[in-house]
Amino acid sequence: MFVEDFLWNKNLSCKDFVSRLGRVGFQSVELKRAADVVVKMKKSGAKVFLTFTSNMVTSGLRGFFAQLVRLKLVDVIVTTTGAIEEDIMRAFGEKFFVGSFRSDDVALYEQGVNRVGNLFISNESYAKFEAKIKGFLGDCFSAKPRWPVSELLREIGLKLDDVDSFLFQAAKNDVPVFCPGITDGAFGFHLFLFQQTHKDFVVDVVKDFANIVFSSNQDMKKGGIILGGGISKHHAIFSCLINGGLDFAVYLTTSNPASGSMSSATTSEAKSWGKIRDDSDAVTVFGDVSITFPLMMSFALEVLSDEGLIEDE
Amino acid sequence: MFVEDFLWNKNLSCKDFVSRLGRVGFQSVELKRAADVVVKMKKSGAKVFLTFTSNMVTSGLRGFFAQLVRLKLVDVIVTTTGAIEEDIMRAFGEKFFVGSFRSDDVALYEQGVNRVGNLFISNESYAKFEAKIKGFLGDCFSAKPRWPVSELLREIGLKLDDVDSFLFQAAKNDVPVFCPGITDGAFGFHLFLFQQTHKDFVVDVVKDFANIVFSSNQDMKKGGIILGGGISKHHAIFSCLINGGLDFAVYLTTSNPASGSMSSATTSEAKSWGKIRDDSDAVTVFGDVSITFPLMMSFALEVLSDEGLIEDE
Amino acid sequence: MFVEDFLWNKNLSCKDFVSRLGRVGFQSVELKRAADVVVKMKKSGAKVFLTFTSNMVTSGLRGFFAQLVRLKLVDVIVTTTGAIEEDIMRAFGEKFFVGSFRSDDVALYEQGVNRVGNLFISNESYAKFEAKIKGFLGDCFSAKPRWPVSELLREIGLKLDDVDSFLFQAAKNDVPVFCPGITDGAFGFHLFLFQQTHKDFVVDVVKDFANIVFSSNQDMKKGGIILGGGISKHHAIFSCLINGGLDFAVYLTTSNPASGSMSSATTSEAKSWGKIRDDSDAVTVFGDVSITFPLMMSFALEVLSDEGLIEDE
Amino acid sequence: MFVEDFLWNKNLSCKDFVSRLGRVGFQSVELKRAADVVVKMKKSGAKVFLTFTSNMVTSGLRGFFAQLVRLKLVDVIVTTTGAIEEDIMRAFGEKFFVGSFRSDDVALYEQGVNRVGNLFISNESYAKFEAKIKGFLGDCFSAKPRWPVSELLREIGLKLDDVDSFLFQAAKNDVPVFCPGITDGAFGFHLFLFQQTHKDFVVDVVKDFANIVFSSNQDMKKGGIILGGGISKHHAIFSCLINGGLDFAVYLTTSNPASGSMSSATTSEAKSWGKIRDDSDAVTVFGDVSITFPLMMSFALEVLSDEGLIEDE
Repeated sequence: MFVEDFLWNKNLSCKDFVSRLGRVGFQSVELKRAADVVVKMKKSGAKVFLTFTSNMVTSGLRGFFAQLVRLKLVDVIVTTTGAIEEDIMRAFGEKFFVGSFRSDDVALYEQGVNRVGNLFISNESYAKFEAKIKGFLGDCFSAKPRWPVSELLREIGLKLDDVDSFLFQAAKNDVPVFCPGITDGAFGFHLFLFQQTHKDFVVDVVKDFANIVFSSNQDMKKGGIILGGGISKHHAIFSCLINGGLDFAVYLTTSNPASGSMSSATTSEAKSWGKIRDDSDAVTVFGDVSITFPLMMSFALEVLSDEGLIEDE
Repeated sequence: MFVEDFLWNKNLSCKDFVSRLGRVGFQSVELKRAADVVVKMKKSGAKVFLTFTSNMVTSGLRGFFAQLVRLKLVDVIVTTTGAIEEDIMRAFGEKFFVGSFRSDDVALYEQGVNRVGNLFISNESYAKFEAKIKGFLGDCFSAKPRWPVSELLREIGLKLDDVDSFLFQAAKNDVPVFCPGITDGAFGFHLFLFQQTHKDFVVDVVKDFANIVFSSNQDMKKGGIILGGGISKHHAIFSCLINGGLDFAVYLTTSNPASGSMSSATTSEAKSWGKIRDDSDAVTVFGDVSITFPLMMSFALEVLSDEGLIEDE
Repeated sequence: MFVEDFLWNKNLSCKDFVSRLGRVGFQSVELKRAADVVVKMKKSGAKVFLTFTSNMVTSGLRGFFAQLVRLKLVDVIVTTTGAIEEDIMRAFGEKFFVGSFRSDDVALYEQGVNRVGNLFISNESYAKFEAKIKGFLGDCFSAKPRWPVSELLREIGLKLDDVDSFLFQAAKNDVPVFCPGITDGAFGFHLFLFQQTHKDFVVDVVKDFANIVFSSNQDMKKGGIILGGGISKHHAIFSCLINGGLDFAVYLTTSNPASGSMSSATTSEAKSWGKIRDDSDAVTVFGDVSITFPLMMSFALEVLSDEGLIEDE
Repeated sequence: MFVEDFLWNKNLSCKDFVSRLGRVGFQSVELKRAADVVVKMKKSGAKVFLTFTSNMVTSGLRGFFAQLVRLKLVDVIVTTTGAIEEDIMRAFGEKFFVGSFRSDDVALYEQGVNRVGNLFISNESYAKFEAKIKGFLGDCFSAKPRWPVSELLREIGLKLDDVDSFLFQAAKNDVPVFCPGITDGAFGFHLFLFQQTHKDFVVDVVKDFANIVFSSNQDMKKGGIILGGGISKHHAIFSCLINGGLDFAVYLTTSNPASGSMSSATTSEAKSWGKIRDDSDAVTVFGDVSITFPLMMSFALEVLSDEGLIEDE
């Protein structure tokens, strides 16, 4: 395939834009390849695992994750505790602020503002979360004392009433949300407080491992849309590995593979582990997920919509 | 400003897409801010300096640079030798290939293929360049022996006949192309060969420094669209510094500022140098230019077109 | 402080080397500052939290972590499941290989070799781990059915007999090892298999959150040596936040803060959260931990040894 | 080769430290490999090209470059204009300051301080440079009107009197210093001012291309120690390519190859260009040069000194 000059025209659509990127070079080419893999994984009927990190839910990608669940693009979610917390805050009307990377952090602290890159979360949002979570845990405990994480998150999702909440949409659409490190955050702190007065209360992470393993199987095609790194990334690809490995994978990351970390591990490295099958469609795109993910998905959604494979919005 | 959830809709335009990115977070926010600065610099009547590195001309951004010149978005270009060479190759019909980052480089060498990231250039393209450049230099020398670089590049541009060539469009539209390190590449090699038999032949880089300094002045507003780093970046901002500094600047880069290099220096650091005026609009976007640049510009072009400030395409 | 030229001399010691780095510039300066913070946190009697990611235990840093525990430099460890697994493999005599970043990953898979950057782990090492872990779990379960993670890891550590195992040294020296995402890996898979036949078996992550919170308190000085990112990083600084925040912190990372992720969050950002006290000594060093960590610590250990604050080796 | 645990011991030498890094993993392994290549290139009698960027001369690596020239480790230097300027400032007694990456850049500007990462240069240092350079140019012009860059830099070097100046050591030791983009900086500005009143003054960059090409030849072994990227990197490897390519190469860089830029191009990519011979010893080390370079060289210097191949210091 030849490089082709990118040319702009009036009223350029997102779909045409990404289509042209496919002939430009460097990461633009990889982004178009990744978008093609997403289309292919959906058309193949693969079970789709979406993973993301907490900062992405601080950002406006949060509602987009909910939309993707609603549009049946996603079958399983794996994420971290912060993502759970911030989705709940937003569902109760809290708002986050667009700020600056170069803030006076001590001054922010004094104002009760917490910085996540160029975004700000106020202490009030955390207070709102805390006020709500206690009631939730009480309700759950009265039903039974021992909860796998994804079942707990499903209960919480059902109690939210916000179409832009990924927990709400996941609960409504039978998409399990896994959070293997559930105690790591304010949520964990409230689980701990609750257990202080309810000794029988157990969050059963081992049972939830069974749940994620049984969410797919050897016979299914499996696809991964892996945003950023960390435990969410590893948990999805490891649980698929047990069932024979991913057939399709896109990794969107900012990490340089030179450090040898999981967060920076490429789709190529994953082949050595059988985490991704050797004949799979697997693409790594380097770049900020806040740009690359909506761009990649907007292309994929237009294509799937054109072919009648998703409902229009 | 609050974070707002990104939502996709059918037939999403590039303009709406970037507009929504402005509320998402992290680099998406910076990209939208950068696009706004581009619009503002154009509306203010600023002299616009565009800088790019050689690999971007290997990519399909090359024709886009030509389009931007044609649309009068750019007043001065600063680039490196490889960019000159590859624009000429393409103008004579050579094609580059979309390949892979993980190639067998020894095998490529044996096939006469040179890799630039995930793009390939064949030896034939270099041979074509060499065949053409000799005649050019002879023609120029017969007119006069001493050539500032930008005047030489203008002569070459006038001899090309390709609307997608940035050298051609620059020459036609009186946009000077500066290349402070002109000898660094195959072009330099041919300048050297030519000088071996034409001892009086001089490429006058010092005179060309006068040319870039005089291309703007203290009284003008000045803007910089700085893609990547290196000598092209520094040359544009340094020559503007002499005239009081840039009023507007967008830096698009993949480099982490932690190394202290020019390529990674942010717009904030530039303020300490007076390279960018302290009250200027200045934004740094981290990410691959092959994605961030066409995205940012597609937004800016739509806005400018909506307001009748550029011709439609 | 002025920049001072680095000069080499014969028989240069590591201590003098790092000392000179402190006047060189860029990350060398930050590394020396970080080493000074480590010395200061130790001298102040702070409770020291060390966090690392799985790939660092694949590397030869694993034995160094054990040495630091033995030398009483570390009071609490937070890590991920892979780190637990690989420490156990090595304790049973398995060896990992130094390979290449540019391997043929499909070929490696066929040979039963798994790649972690430029290191290789054979399938045999996993088999060895699996053979051992079953017995461990049986022994633990017969003592009691409900296990906080750190107590389980302590039991395992006591059964290893390898001075270079961090689990062994941690168990022997009463240093708790926390692993908030314990199910995420082969270890998790075996917990799941064991629970299939032992329904009462519970890994109590909520109780372990209490354990990490109670491992320090408001009145103690607290220090963090945070290697890489992910859940280990966040868990340590979050649990210290509950007790008033870290007084000293060094972050060693390869991530660019531009993405807004936890892994890339700097010590400055942490101040906005009160995760690090606003008056704390806090330094971020960008670079590969396999180089920056042993270099920083070798300086700190020499200084502490010179002052008689650690035993010599 | 197996991974081996890193262990510290009292009075650890730099040489032993790097030696142990060779078995640790990730970039530590690559750094040791690179150090071995440096030893090998020296022992083979290769012509050694050293390239560096301007910021490295702002740092305390400047005197180390001078030392390496004095110790006959380096045969050819390629760098950028800022490096020339800052070496001259330092040679006249100016001092640079160790500051912070997170400075108030507008305040610095008002204080006449220019930031380079975490280093500061005052306006006085630039004034000192300017005061000196005029006289130099007058002296050179009175000898002849047309100057290849490296010959001009040699004249300047001879007039400095500072053992820690790389220009001084290079001039004294017949090591040519190439600077293909000589006009890009304050030096260029003074060349331009001088030419305004001395129209015949020519800086002959084309002739200097001949000089770098003739500084090595097909029959010689050639080695490259390439620090950072940009024009310095490309110029050295391109000029060696003309003579058959490098036999040995180490690249020390912070750039992720994902962008396809020259600065980030790896030694593997260079093989496709014949820039590095396919059977060469070629290693890329990711990390900040202010740490990786003195560490790599301290090992190599100890080894060479032990074998009597360099003079002791």
